[in-house]
Parts: sequence; C-alpha cells; structure tokens
Amino acid sequence: MKTAAIIGGGVIGGGWAARFLINGWDVVISDPDPEAERKISEVLANARRSLPALSDVAIPKEGKLSFASSIKDCVQDADWIQESVPERLDIKHKVFAEIQKHCRVDALIGSSTSGFKPSELQQGAARPDLIFVAHPFNPVYLLPVIELVGVHTTLEKAAAVLDTLGMKPLIVRKEIDAHIADRLLEAVWREALWLIKDGICTTEELDDAIRFGFGLRWAQMGMFETYRIAGGEAGMRHFMAQFGPCLEWPWTKLMDVPEFNDELVDLIAGQSDAQSGKYSIRELERIRDDNLVSMMRALKARNWGAGALLNQHDARNRPSLPDSIAAPLRTLERVVPIDWTDYNGHMNESRYGQVFSDAGDVVMAMIGADQAYIDGGMSYFTVDNHITYNNETHAGEAVYVRTQVLEAKGKKLRMYHEFCRVSDDELLATCNQLLVHVSLETRRSCEPGPEMAAKMAVLHEAQTRLPRPASMRD
Amino acid sequence: MKTAAIIGGGVIGGGWAARFLINGWDVVISDPDPEAERKISEVLANARRSLPALSDVAIPKEGKLSFASSIKDCVQDADWIQESVPERLDIKHKVFAEIQKHCRVDALIGSSTSGFKPSELQQGAARPDLIFVAHPFNPVYLLPVIELVGVHTTLEKAAAVLDTLGMKPLIVRKEIDAHIADRLLEAVWREALWLIKDGICTTEELDDAIRFGFGLRWAQMGMFETYRIAGGEAGMRHFMAQFGPCLEWPWTKLMDVPEFNDELVDLIAGQSDAQSGKYSIRELERIRDDNLVSMMRALKARNWGAGALLNQHDARNRPSLPDSIAAPLRTLERVVPIDWTDYNGHMNESRYGQVFSDAGDVVMAMIGADQAYIDGGMSYFTVDNHITYNNETHAGEAVYVRTQVLEAKGKKLRMYHEFCRVSDDELLATCNQLLVHVSLETRRSCEPGPEMAAKMAVLHEAQTRLPRPASMRD
Repeated sequence: MKTAAIIGGGVIGGGWAARFLINGWDVVISDPDPEAERKISEVLANARRSLPALSDVAIPKEGKLSFASSIKDCVQDADWIQESVPERLDIKHKVFAEIQKHCRVDALIGSSTSGFKPSELQQGAARPDLIFVAHPFNPVYLLPVIELVGVHTTLEKAAAVLDTLGMKPLIVRKEIDAHIADRLLEAVWREALWLIKDGICTTEELDDAIRFGFGLRWAQMGMFETYRIAGGEAGMRHFMAQFGPCLEWPWTKLMDVPEFNDELVDLIAGQSDAQSGKYSIRELERIRDDNLVSMMRALKARNWGAGALLNQHDARNRPSLPDSIAAPLRTLERVVPIDWTDYNGHMNESRYGQVFSDAGDVVMAMIGADQAYIDGGMSYFTVDNHITYNNETHAGEAVYVRTQVLEAKGKKLRMYHEFCRVSDDELLATCNQLLVHVSLETRRSCEPGPEMAAKMAVLHEAQTRLPRPASMRD
Repeated sequence: MKTAAIIGGGVIGGGWAARFLINGWDVVISDPDPEAERKISEVLANARRSLPALSDVAIPKEGKLSFASSIKDCVQDADWIQESVPERLDIKHKVFAEIQKHCRVDALIGSSTSGFKPSELQQGAARPDLIFVAHPFNPVYLLPVIELVGVHTTLEKAAAVLDTLGMKPLIVRKEIDAHIADRLLEAVWREALWLIKDGICTTEELDDAIRFGFGLRWAQMGMFETYRIAGGEAGMRHFMAQFGPCLEWPWTKLMDVPEFNDELVDLIAGQSDAQSGKYSIRELERIRDDNLVSMMRALKARNWGAGALLNQHDARNRPSLPDSIAAPLRTLERVVPIDWTDYNGHMNESRYGQVFSDAGDVVMAMIGADQAYIDGGMSYFTVDNHITYNNETHAGEAVYVRTQVLEAKGKKLRMYHEFCRVSDDELLATCNQLLVHVSLETRRSCEPGPEMAAKMAVLHEAQTRLPRPASMRD
C-alpha cells in the first residue's frame, strides 16, 4: 500500500486524490479551505461513477482517504506529494519548504502548475532535484496525460508511478513556460477570443467547428499523424510543401493580443450562458465524463491511443485464471460501464451476452484456447445461448460471473454461467452456453488436438462432479 | 433523386462524392488527372466501409457514379456543384465561369477552399450570389461539419441540402480569411512547429499531449464549454478572470513565425516517419476511420454532439413500422458496424443479442410501447432469450431481421426472430425471445392497459395464424 499527500484540494487536487484512491493508494489531503472536504467529495463522487467503468477487469480495493490539519501531518508518510496550490511562485516556494521540512527524504514532489518551469519551482529548495512539474488535465481522474518536467532521474521514478495509475507520463525534453499542451491551448484561446470579439462566430459555433470536425481527429491521432494522412502517399514532406507557405498568410490574428476588458468578458460569458446555461456545472461534468468514458472505451475496442493505454492497464490488473477447478469458477469480475446501458436506464439485454461471452473466454483460456491459440488458427465459436434475465443492473455496479462447465468433450464446450451482483449476491441472469471448437481457416468445427483434449478431460471430470447450480435446478 | 457535380477529384472531391453517393445522390465527376478514377475509387472504398456503419437504420440505395470529360458535361444536370480544385484564385475564377456557362441557373456552387473568402471567389461571376464557401474536413465522408460562407439566402438552401446528407452546416457570420477552424488549426500548427524546432518535444510527443488529453475533451464539447466547466459553479466569468491575464504572459511564440526551411521540413518529416512510418497511409486512413466511427457511435449512445447529429439523421431515415401484420415482420435492416466485431474478426455473440433487442423494440412500438410510452412509466423487459448461432457475419455486411410474434397476450410478448444476411438471405442466427410488460416505477411485471391489449390481440391473431418459420421447425 502506498500513500499520496495532496496539498491543495479543489478540482485538480481532488482529481489527483481520486486517481490515487481508486487505484488502491491511501490519500491524505491538506487544504486550509473549510469547504475542502465538501469540494473533494464532489470530485470523488464524479470519479467513482466514471473511472472504474474504464476497466474491463476488477479494480483494486479503494484506499483510505483522510484529511490533515497541517502540511506536516499530511506529508510525513507520503511516497508521492502533489502540490496544486494557486499559481503564485511565492506561495509555491513556501509550500515546498514546509513539505521538505517534514516529508521523507526520498518523497517525490510533483507540482500541478500550468505555467511555471521546474527551475523556478526549485529555487531555494532543500532537495531541489525531487521537485518536478507533473501537470495534469481536467478531469484528472479520466484524462491520462501528465506532462513531466524536471530532473531526468526523478522523472523516471515519477513516470513509473504514473504507469501504475494507468496514466500517460509525457516527459518534456526541455523546460519552457506552460510546457506543451497549454502552449497549444493558449494559441487557440487567443485566436478564439478574436473570432468572438470580431463577431465571426459565437462561442457555441466555435465549439461546433471543433467538435464536429478536427476535435474528432485529435482525440485519436493528434495533429501530426492526422496531417501525415492528409499528405497522402507522399506523406509529411508533401503536406509541409503544400501548407508550409500558409505560415506567411494572414490566417490568424496571433500577432495581436485582444484587449482583455469587461466588454470582452461580458460578450463571451453571455454567449456561453446561451450555449450551455441549460445545464448546471454538475450536469455538464457528468455529461462530459460519460462522453469521455464512452469514447475512451470505443478507442479501447480499437486498441488505439488512450484506449490502448486502458488495455495495457487492464492487462497488468488481469486476475490469474481460476486455480481450483474443484469448485464453480469465478470467471469474471468488473463494474458495469455506462456504454452498456439503454433507454430503460439499466444494462441492455445484449450486454448480458457480452458478460457471458467474456466469461466463456476465461474457460477457453483455462484449456489453452488463448490469444496465441487463436492467432494459430483455431478458436471456439458459440453456437447456442439460453439466457434468463432475473434482475436489473445499472452503470457503476460491481458484478461477477460464477461458471460451471457442464461438458468439455470432443468439439463441445458447454457451460452454465450465473451472473451476480457483488454487493448482495443477487442473481441477475443465467446462461446455458454451448461453444464448439473451430478451425479459423475452414470456419468449420473440428476436433481439438491431444494437448487441449487432455486439459478438457481434467476440467470435465472435476466440474461435472459438482452439484448442479441452484438456479439450474429450479 | 438528386445529382451532384464534383469538380476536382482527389481526397476532398472524392470525400464529397462519397457523401452524396452513399446518401442516394447521383454523382458526376470532372477531373483532368488521368489517375482521377483510381484515386476516387480508393476514397470511395474507404467511405463504403465506414460511413454506412454510422447508421443504425437501413441506408438509401447508393446513387450512380459517372465521370465527365468536361466541366460542361459534368454540371449541366447538377443540383449541387462542388469545386475542389487547387487553391489558386485565377484557376478557381476560370472554373466558376465555365460552370456557370453550362449549369442550371439555380444550381448551388460550393467551394472547398480553405482560405479564400466568398467575395474573392465571386469576382467576375455571372451569378455571384450562388457561389459560396462550403469548406469540409478530411475525411469528408465521416466528419460532419461544413463551414458555409456567402450570401445568406443561398447558404440557407445549402444548409438544407447538407442536413439531408447528415452533415453539420455551420454558417459563418462574417467572411474572414481561412474561416473559423483553419484559423485555430493554423495557430496550433505555428506553435507546434516552434516546439519541434526548439527540441521541446517530437511530433509523436506533441500528438500524445493532444490525444491523451485535451483532444478527448474537444471531440465532444469543444473549448468554451470545456472551460465553462473548469470555471466551476462560478462559470465562464470566473474562468476568464483566472486565465484572462495569461494572454499577456510569454506562453506562446505566436508573435514570431518560424523560418520555413529544409532543415525544419527534414526535422519534422523524419520525426513523423519514426512516429507513423510503420503504417502505410492506406492503413492509417483505415485506423483513423475505424476510430472515428467507433467514437462517433459512442457519442451516439450518449446522444451528444456528433452522435446526436447521427441520431437525428437516423430518425429522418427510420423506416415506418411494418404495415402488413399478415406476414412475418421486417423488424430491422442495417449494416454491421466495426464496433460490433471481436478478436475472431466477426460480429461478437453479444451483438446478436443487440440485433434481437432492436428488433423486439420495433414490435413493441407496433403495439404502442414507444419512447413516449416508456417516458410515461411503462415498458417491456426481456426475461428469456434463446439464441442459436448459425453463421458468421462481418463489419460492413447488410443484414435484416424477420420476426414472427408467437404470443401477445396479457403481460407476455413472445417473438421468434430470424437474423439474415441481405446479399444471399443466409440465416445467421435465430432468437426465441420472451418480453414481459413492466411498470418502471415498481420494476415489476403488470398488465398493459386496454388500448395496448387491443393492439396486442390484433397482432396475436394475425401472426399466430401464420405457419411457424422454417428454422423453428427444424
């Protein structure tokens, strides 16, 4: 068990706390704001309803959350200390001094700063090498990237920790004001303010220009890979020859800074109300989180970008195959994700089939029909499923499947699955499922080889000796 | 049936052609490039494997594609003419003159120009009012937004056409160089070139900073709505007070233009090769398209942004309920989308359940259990499904479901579905499905009201009189 100290709550500190807690770390929070506990609990509520659903395996038991009344009490046992106090260098320097007076000498100290360089943060510190930029993006509990800037040996340790949290550490090669992403965001923000101020479009129209267009490209490939495609077979060089000259054209107003005055604030805040005012911020957060979870899970199925990262994280946390075969097999444990629910507000009937399909995969793996076997040209196909629906389940509920093998002989693998809720062991559904062994070349059934047949015989012998599951006898 | 004339093939013209064709328009293409036919066919192949899968209803029969040897032959019957020739004003003026010499006097003439303003395009034209900017984003067959700039009455007509193609017309309020999105892109491109040139990051690291972070936000909410959330309950005004001052900070190098020389091109093209060179452009296109389809379908399930647009388009194309109940009911017709396939390369067993769930919804709607009924607090829940899997099906295949009602009495609605491939009528799977009428308040079964009971009786009478389906008798 590891401990994280969060200095400064709010949306960013709370997001960090959620990442650590939900990945099994203990978290201690220090924030002088009397509202801190309420604010953190709101962020945590959002995180608990969205982050676990990114996983297709069981997630670790949540760590312990506590609040400390001083930086001293907060940091003394911490492995990782994350500073998210206001963006003023004098405040940050005071906080770092207090942290390093009380923390372990090897504690990693990340700063959530958007703008400051590590050389600025480290000024006057007792152990400057251990202070680094770890800049996250809101919502911190869902967006994986963390910009790391500082001393290389420290960053390597920090990156290893972030890996275990399912995050994407991005080591910035040289320090620069605002790191990487915020420089890009600042460029767009500046141009966007001009477009609104000059009446070319409203805030909503500008958002639409992004989210119905290049935003969809950037969510999965970023800019350079997208432009490489635009260059066609001739690639990036061709693209640059074609678009390089635009750099000199009057395509932006970037050379000018729009005057930041009340009139501009009124214009933009008013348009933003018209665009989004029908939702509260809490509602917008949940809409955003459900969208992010759904899109990231879509990328997971493609094993690409943020989705590939989720698959890597699942692989690290994947439970080993059931070791005792003299009892019903625990073949699945997970949380119901939002993208499995339907207009009735509960898990759609088709996703019960998904659960049983995944559970069947585990039994296949137990007899050696794993990914390598499938890549070798053999697999099992389902030929018959009989599902009874006993109860509803909803997004965020922890569920499991208990499986009994009814027959594992020749080409046939027949299983009986009971799908249950973790909290009360309520039976949600059952499935009597028949798989047959197939050649992926002929797409027809065929006998498995002697090695698999031997494993099947052992499984058959142990499992068919067990009493039939209660729900099957009803 | 409508006709579109595409002047200038290539990736953009080809993308427009695909949008029109797959939405049932006839398309005539004019391009002097001897390779045009091959290039267009490649774009079309990509479009045919991805665009139809965005729809959850049957799509129109594809229009007729032909090639014209002159602009005259190309445009004479066209309702919409789309110009996508190289970005040189003198060339565009010549093309518009030739088009308006031969086209219908009311033909709409959109230009795919990234940079030119409509007032520039219209110079010297016979009917300048009908020439407008209709600026798309690559891939045009998937990304919905089209920036429209020009004379208002013309743009309204153009927007109505784009609506029918499932696109998102965005009328720009005042003309400006490079419209809206490309100004934002130009700002990022410029800052990105500096970051690469100064060795802060590589092209791959910059892409990661986007796609593991704010790119995911932008794909669904854009920038202003995202920042509104960042402002918290205090909203946009608070956000601006906090971040407005950064405008004056040295957070970008935007005031300078990086020198565009061979060294910069070599640096970026080399890094791009290291990042993406393991894939051909064709592979990257397909990865991108599969990602976009999967993410847009994920947003569709959330009914948000680009996904809400897809739902609106489906609703327009939704077939009416089967009118004859004296025969098996055609309850579903669609294409298998990429996100329904699994590691075996075929449609996952759970998605067969999805097909039958959707088919069941149609029968529910026929007896009055539609969205309004569900909103009123009653629905049907599936309690038992028996699925037999007869054959595989793959992404892109057109499929349908034929349904026979076996019982529609009291709380019970029992159906037998046959799921078939359109091309050869091959039986893919069958499902014997039992639904019960429930109160969404008590979550328990209950009798439907007299109005629904009457409709059920009529359906029961007509359908149970039919002979049992062949696959059921086997």
